[in-house]
Amino acid sequence: MSEPVTLSIDAMGGDNAPEMVVEGVETALERLNGVRFLLFGDEAKLRPLLERHGKARAVCEIRHTPEIVTNDAKPAQALRGGRNSSMRLAINAVGDGEAAGIVSAGNTGALMAMAKFVLKTLPGIDRPAIATYFPTRRGESVMLDLGANVECDADNLIQFAVMGEVFARNVLGLNNPTVGILNVGQEDLKGNQAVQTAAQGLTNASLPLRFHGFVEGDDIGAGTVDVIVTDGFTGNIALKTAEGTAKLFGHFLKEALTSSLFPKLGALLAKSALTTFKMRVDPRRYNGAMFVGLNGICVKSHGGTDAVGFANAIHVALDLIGNDFNESIKEDYEAFRASFNPDDVEVVANG
Amino acid sequence: MSEPVTLSIDAMGGDNAPEMVVEGVETALERLNGVRFLLFGDEAKLRPLLERHGKARAVCEIRHTPEIVTNDAKPAQALRGGRNSSMRLAINAVGDGEAAGIVSAGNTGALMAMAKFVLKTLPGIDRPAIATYFPTRRGESVMLDLGANVECDADNLIQFAVMGEVFARNVLGLNNPTVGILNVGQEDLKGNQAVQTAAQGLTNASLPLRFHGFVEGDDIGAGTVDVIVTDGFTGNIALKTAEGTAKLFGHFLKEALTSSLFPKLGALLAKSALTTFKMRVDPRRYNGAMFVGLNGICVKSHGGTDAVGFANAIHVALDLIGNDFNESIKEDYEAFRASFNPDDVEVVANG
Repeated sequence: MSEPVTLSIDAMGGDNAPEMVVEGVETALERLNGVRFLLFGDEAKLRPLLERHGKARAVCEIRHTPEIVTNDAKPAQALRGGRNSSMRLAINAVGDGEAAGIVSAGNTGALMAMAKFVLKTLPGIDRPAIATYFPTRRGESVMLDLGANVECDADNLIQFAVMGEVFARNVLGLNNPTVGILNVGQEDLKGNQAVQTAAQGLTNASLPLRFHGFVEGDDIGAGTVDVIVTDGFTGNIALKTAEGTAKLFGHFLKEALTSSLFPKLGALLAKSALTTFKMRVDPRRYNGAMFVGLNGICVKSHGGTDAVGFANAIHVALDLIGNDFNESIKEDYEAFRASFNPDDVEVVANG
Repeated sequence: MSEPVTLSIDAMGGDNAPEMVVEGVETALERLNGVRFLLFGDEAKLRPLLERHGKARAVCEIRHTPEIVTNDAKPAQALRGGRNSSMRLAINAVGDGEAAGIVSAGNTGALMAMAKFVLKTLPGIDRPAIATYFPTRRGESVMLDLGANVECDADNLIQFAVMGEVFARNVLGLNNPTVGILNVGQEDLKGNQAVQTAAQGLTNASLPLRFHGFVEGDDIGAGTVDVIVTDGFTGNIALKTAEGTAKLFGHFLKEALTSSLFPKLGALLAKSALTTFKMRVDPRRYNGAMFVGLNGICVKSHGGTDAVGFANAIHVALDLIGNDFNESIKEDYEAFRASFNPDDVEVVANG
């Protein structure tokens, strides 16, 4: 790319902001060029931080904002009261066309409410979703929704499937990715009406979308499909359950390997292999939840992340921008709608 | 216990039945006495197996059954057509009072449908649930429902809470166990109406039940609460996600530790510690999903388990019997109902 990309950053969002954010930009710049940043936040704090981070200083422009959206602010409250917050003004920069995307480690609910209000959804998409990708036995998969929509109907799930497929193809670089709907069994009659109707719709569609059918919780780690579609209630709980299990497993492993002398020596010998292992499951590598379906790129970093994690969220945003993610969603969703006859979808009784 | 306990066994259920089942009984008998077994299944197959398993032969009585419920049978189909199956006749033995409980590794849906039909639910319990316990950072917790009820209302969740609490107290031996409802956030306004109304009901109840409030997916592994209450759709996916993540983690670890010479030597030195670690997360230790809320003890073993896992399911059933699990549920649920004023529960708008 010859023209520089501009990314808008909510410099005040996150547990260790703004220090972590500026450090994150500096870290991201280790393998980036041709990117400019607009840092929205408290200039008195940001200025000295930039003094200490030379790479960031060269490509960052501070936009002073007097307010912060706190972590306990309710979405509606933030939307009404946070008009001069770092988060809101950073989103506005995307809405105004000044920046190509925004990254924030702030309050998820507030970020979604503001992004939806300012950016609006893409044509044909009723509700944006939160998506992330994660390691599996076969590589990487993407899952959505992870919590934006507690209740979803079949149409929502179908829209998530199309958006997830575009992500897997354009950003993960997979040819002909497979899509599955998360359910309590693989048989057609399992689950609630939303998943059954959505499965019928995807089966009948003529998009270049390989619909695998239903998948179960253990298919997430197995990497059975490239895209896992689910409602925000189930997706949020599945993702956090996976994170919690990984943490528990790591804790048990650490206890075992520090229990006495031989295991300690063994762990020392296996040190580089254990480091590789740890890196493979490092949650920071998968930091950067994407808000998909909005008319603008918006990436949410984990609030408790460090500079390495925040840098990763920046890379995720740039990947989405560089791959024309939203344009592809628009095209694919139009093609899907054109190929899709709602009369093909028959309502199935709850099994 | 002086009087022998009789356990009814569906000897034909499970991927490797009946071999695995008879071996499982033999394995269970290594740390059991005062227990008799009724083995329901194909006598021509069971007889020679018992010849080879002396401990089992001494305490098993074969009840010949000509039919088997297959894994792909639909619940309604099994209920109508499986009247002479090993599964059905094994359940009937509990219904008739001949056995104190039944263990099966067969088709879950069929087992639940038959058990519900034959045994009926406990007074005041609308729907039985599937429960299991699992390792956490703090010890062990129990979660329910794991798939019996795809959709649950607040009353169902409250009943699950009471039953889970009885399990944690009477079987896991915890004093004053804590109960949480699985949700997408800890704040009062998160989630759907069922979880919000159930949380209000439990907050207002005067049972000796310590209601912690909402918990999230990562609280499962952390052991934040002793009892996790959820609907069967979410619970099934959460449990299978945890299993899949543990498998993935184990796979990555194995790859790392066999990648080259040093890690291999390290793993050799740490062998006993790694074995302890593996045992700690061994799914066979937690094999035995309990059908709770039925007027009789019914334990479902994983279909693909081996003799060690099946033996564990037998121990789970005996624990429930020995601790008068169902009597305690009845008492606690009556006390709960008496203390509970439905007018205290106000319907909250969906957040």
